[in-house]
Amino acid sequence: MSKTRVHNLFVSADGYAAGEYVTLTEPIGKAAALFSRFDGRVIHGIQGADAPVTVDRALFALWGQGIGAEIMGRRKFGPQEGPWPDDGWQGWWGEEPPFLTPTFVLTHHPREAISFENGTSFSFIDASPHEALAMAQDAAGGLDVRLGGGPSSVREFLEADLVDFLHLAIVPVVLGAGVRFWDQLEGLHDRFEVETVSTASGLTHQLFNRRPRD
Amino acid sequence: MSKTRVHNLFVSADGYAAGEYVTLTEPIGKAAALFSRFDGRVIHGIQGADAPVTVDRALFALWGQGIGAEIMGRRKFGPQEGPWPDDGWQGWWGEEPPFLTPTFVLTHHPREAISFENGTSFSFIDASPHEALAMAQDAAGGLDVRLGGGPSSVREFLEADLVDFLHLAIVPVVLGAGVRFWDQLEGLHDRFEVETVSTASGLTHQLFNRRPRD
Repeated sequence: MSKTRVHNLFVSADGYAAGEYVTLTEPIGKAAALFSRFDGRVIHGIQGADAPVTVDRALFALWGQGIGAEIMGRRKFGPQEGPWPDDGWQGWWGEEPPFLTPTFVLTHHPREAISFENGTSFSFIDASPHEALAMAQDAAGGLDVRLGGGPSSVREFLEADLVDFLHLAIVPVVLGAGVRFWDQLEGLHDRFEVETVSTASGLTHQLFNRRPRD
Repeated sequence: MSKTRVHNLFVSADGYAAGEYVTLTEPIGKAAALFSRFDGRVIHGIQGADAPVTVDRALFALWGQGIGAEIMGRRKFGPQEGPWPDDGWQGWWGEEPPFLTPTFVLTHHPREAISFENGTSFSFIDASPHEALAMAQDAAGGLDVRLGGGPSSVREFLEADLVDFLHLAIVPVVLGAGVRFWDQLEGLHDRFEVETVSTASGLTHQLFNRRPRD
């Protein structure tokens, strides 16, 4: 049974999970402090880093395990709004996007798909969460679907009750501004079993597993 | 730089890490309580289990990441002592041993190697820890070497200061008998950075990372 999973979603003490705006030169806006403890080298496994094996890294390394497709919001691909400029720009991720699977970018402005040699492809779809998930599951070939963020798209999928697993990392920083994560999620804890551990880095990891649906 | 890693080594509150003896029908002797919280389905990644994603499972899933060879003590292969009987028995692991890499079995009684279709092979070597590690590193092709236990062989490699990473899971059970883990390891903590977390299952995970050698 294919699960829909969210990994490595960082939330500040005051509930922000991304910068207020993003630009071509500031992909994460003013929210860099959110990612200061993140080691992206281990998303495909701890062999990626010549660094100590920590609980943080063990949890970050879940990201790629058993994933066959990703769904992401448009701002995770690039900062543009409205119709796409015809400038050949292929997203923030360069020539080696780390996704390695089909990736579906949610946008009201479809455009032609882009493929990379490492297995990553970006398809641009104007779709509801249910529709997007059906497409991603189809592409995942029985593996799980990762919901890649940003926080607004994760929140939409949570509101639609389409998420089976959610890994939050609460970062002890106070941003004061940004994209709020917890809005419209009242009672979320009723639907999930939540496990919490704190680690030596100061992160608090919360693992939300959806309770069995009736 | 190839690391030598130990994963998922369970130790009772009173310091035992295996049963006192093992037989063909009791591969873990009287120590079953040690493994009661272990989910072997996730050693190659959490996709192996239709089960909640927990911190325990994230840590168990480190087992296979970036590993190119394993070294194990003889009792992890089988209960025999002395010269091998000529009975065609191929170890406790059946037709699909989970190792998927070259595996070196430490024994004073070498015998012919055994290979399986899934990539696992068992080579039987009469070697010191240093010699065994050199052979395993050679076979690992630049990946890490897992030191697979049992506890006596892990202790030998720790005494020889050949271990870079050690993941212990302390289980809140009192066995009263078995193979003692902590003997001859006085001052071990001086050589390692240790991170400790406790999880909802009652396990306490300790991650030992070797401090940089001078």
